[in-house]
Amino acid sequence: MATKLSGFPEFLPRERIVEQQVLDHLRRTFELHGFANIETRAVEPLDVLLRKGEIDKEVYAVKRLASADSEPAELALHYDLTVPFARYVLENAGKLDFPFRRWQIQKVWRGERPQQGRFREFTQADIDIVGRDELPFHFDVEVARVMAEALAGLPIPTPTLQISNRKILEGFYLGLGITEPAAVMQVVDKLDKVPAEKIHELLLEQGLDGSQADRVLALAQVVTTDTSFVGQVEALGVEHELLAEGLAELAQVVDGASGVDGVVVTADLRIARGLDYYTGTVFETRLAGWEHLGSICSGGRYDQLAQDRRTTYPGVGISLGVSRLLVPLELSASRSVPSAVLVAVDSEDTRADSDAIARRLRARGIPTEVAAKAARFGKQIQTAEKRGIPFVWFPPAAVKDIRSGDQVDADPDRWTPPAEDLIPNILTKEQNT
Amino acid sequence: MATKLSGFPEFLPRERIVEQQVLDHLRRTFELHGFANIETRAVEPLDVLLRKGEIDKEVYAVKRLASADSEPAELALHYDLTVPFARYVLENAGKLDFPFRRWQIQKVWRGERPQQGRFREFTQADIDIVGRDELPFHFDVEVARVMAEALAGLPIPTPTLQISNRKILEGFYLGLGITEPAAVMQVVDKLDKVPAEKIHELLLEQGLDGSQADRVLALAQVVTTDTSFVGQVEALGVEHELLAEGLAELAQVVDGASGVDGVVVTADLRIARGLDYYTGTVFETRLAGWEHLGSICSGGRYDQLAQDRRTTYPGVGISLGVSRLLVPLELSASRSVPSAVLVAVDSEDTRADSDAIARRLRARGIPTEVAAKAARFGKQIQTAEKRGIPFVWFPPAAVKDIRSGDQVDADPDRWTPPAEDLIPNILTKEQNT
Repeated sequence: MATKLSGFPEFLPRERIVEQQVLDHLRRTFELHGFANIETRAVEPLDVLLRKGEIDKEVYAVKRLASADSEPAELALHYDLTVPFARYVLENAGKLDFPFRRWQIQKVWRGERPQQGRFREFTQADIDIVGRDELPFHFDVEVARVMAEALAGLPIPTPTLQISNRKILEGFYLGLGITEPAAVMQVVDKLDKVPAEKIHELLLEQGLDGSQADRVLALAQVVTTDTSFVGQVEALGVEHELLAEGLAELAQVVDGASGVDGVVVTADLRIARGLDYYTGTVFETRLAGWEHLGSICSGGRYDQLAQDRRTTYPGVGISLGVSRLLVPLELSASRSVPSAVLVAVDSEDTRADSDAIARRLRARGIPTEVAAKAARFGKQIQTAEKRGIPFVWFPPAAVKDIRSGDQVDADPDRWTPPAEDLIPNILTKEQNT
Repeated sequence: MATKLSGFPEFLPRERIVEQQVLDHLRRTFELHGFANIETRAVEPLDVLLRKGEIDKEVYAVKRLASADSEPAELALHYDLTVPFARYVLENAGKLDFPFRRWQIQKVWRGERPQQGRFREFTQADIDIVGRDELPFHFDVEVARVMAEALAGLPIPTPTLQISNRKILEGFYLGLGITEPAAVMQVVDKLDKVPAEKIHELLLEQGLDGSQADRVLALAQVVTTDTSFVGQVEALGVEHELLAEGLAELAQVVDGASGVDGVVVTADLRIARGLDYYTGTVFETRLAGWEHLGSICSGGRYDQLAQDRRTTYPGVGISLGVSRLLVPLELSASRSVPSAVLVAVDSEDTRADSDAIARRLRARGIPTEVAAKAARFGKQIQTAEKRGIPFVWFPPAAVKDIRSGDQVDADPDRWTPPAEDLIPNILTKEQNT
């Protein structure tokens, strides 16, 4: 990886092939579910970003160099895809069909201090469903399911989709007689970084009594891979209408998202996303063995994604941090080029013959390149080897698998490489070194 | 099209589908030819951009809002993909295999005054082949051929690839006894905008005599769709070694790029690209009926794409202005979503049955969405119609083509829509209104 400008990762061709395959899989999954794609411009008016943004997100201002120094910057690079999407929905509301399902994969920029897993430029993959005035609850189940299927096909350690519902937390706290549930949620949200005893202390500082604090922590300890969390929560003996509603919702989402091979789905009541604008379902995702990366895929339900004078647009969505996932995993591909075949060149006088063979292979969808030079064949095979190209074609009619050394007679209008050699394969860091 | 921020075009979902299909086709073509993909970061050090850039390209400076006002901007958004590519090649030279073929499709930014066909943010699609120390001439033929094939599959008016070679112009001028061929090339380059008589005057001002100016203009009038330009130039009675070399090169490129259905290839000796750093082959491309857009796809051979202390990296490449092409054409798609099928929902109690049918269709690659609401079926059909979804599935086992009204019994594990309905179709502006 070339990271000559700190925080701005760039991939080598073999690494970019992995990213391409990941993005292709995400797109395929999203589109199979009928999500439409949009791209929004990289810049937004600065005041929009500052109004909507969290304070700690450092914004990159953008200004024409030719403009006067004294002229204040009015534009800035977007730091997520949610704020631009909300703006896009409001601008185009008359031309969109609601509920509007959209996927969006773009770079975003944050002027953060670079550190492991934090970048100044990185790629996010977002899905959101936005309604006009209302958005039925079954869409919460849908985004969870779609993202579970998207994660399932990725070359990554087993992901655990951790789902919670803020109505459960809020209802439980209200049922316990806690008057400021939001403040308690913010404390509980720190459980990832702060030991439980310390959280208990902090809760007492919030004015909770010991029994309240115990039960708040007991709720946060509920984690199940099925809907048995409902019984566990009920056993804590707290009752509230909002709590019951949240339990019913979460049971539906966990049920609907489960059963996708390769993805663990949990109801995890530690997940609060306390600082955000979520109003019901919330999601986080952690990777087995890579928990230190934090959540690589997060989101939830927000009853007000956007609003204009007449209309409110509720939404539910999840955002996957593609760079945050791929950069640390250090995956690579079996070759540095798409080519499955290198056609050898006997002499520069007969290059046209090699070109013609390549054209016939490409016509049948086989990525093919022609040797750069009419060097001796041993050297041309080395070139292919260095790039990881599995097959070398010797004009007019022989093809060699350079891994096994097997050479067969072949017709460029009929021969096809095995399906697993048609596109590059993904290698883990261990396989690669 | 929503262009609320002048110069920053954004597509509606139906328009974005067109752009996606265009980008997919470009990628498929480039990868069939073995070009590797890279993406470079959006920002480059400001001094790199200003050193390499043309003066008239207005650069967008980027600066963390949190940094002190007095701190000068050190980064800027890239205005093309060539400067970042040259930097990437130098940074990663030890890890790349040369000759290195790469394709790159990304946004670029220019702080220009917005006007028709000029944007402040737009997408470019570049292919380049770069060598270390040397790059055989046959790569000039290859990039021309690849771009001709890429253009051939696009939903656009017939493109004409206009190819020239600066060695022809320079050799011809030198053979005529002109001592400053570069200055003459810059004058001839204006032929697109300035009448020939005026060019003649300008040439006299450059110190040419009438006969020299006549022949310079005669050369610029040579346009052929085959290699007959060689005879036409020779008939002008000028001799020079460089001229002969240029004619032989251009004949090879025209020959190699010809024969692609739907693309006109010409040798066009008016093309000089006078202000650029090209050293041999040069390309421009115009669209039939859309000549006012100027060249939508340009490039050429540059003997020094990049250079470090020890090594020179020659290259040849072409850059396609995707936004410049697509925004004015105003193409749209037959639907606003990827979905080929909408599965109707009988009642909210049986939504799970509709979900299960959708899952079976998706498992066989058919993009499918489930109705948002269990409304009456007439209303669900209207929803599909509005989005352009061709088929509505009625659980458990009937599917209706809502365009013809034909309904058939069908098994969700077997039924497949006709291939032409699997993905949205592209509509021209006329078909769309």
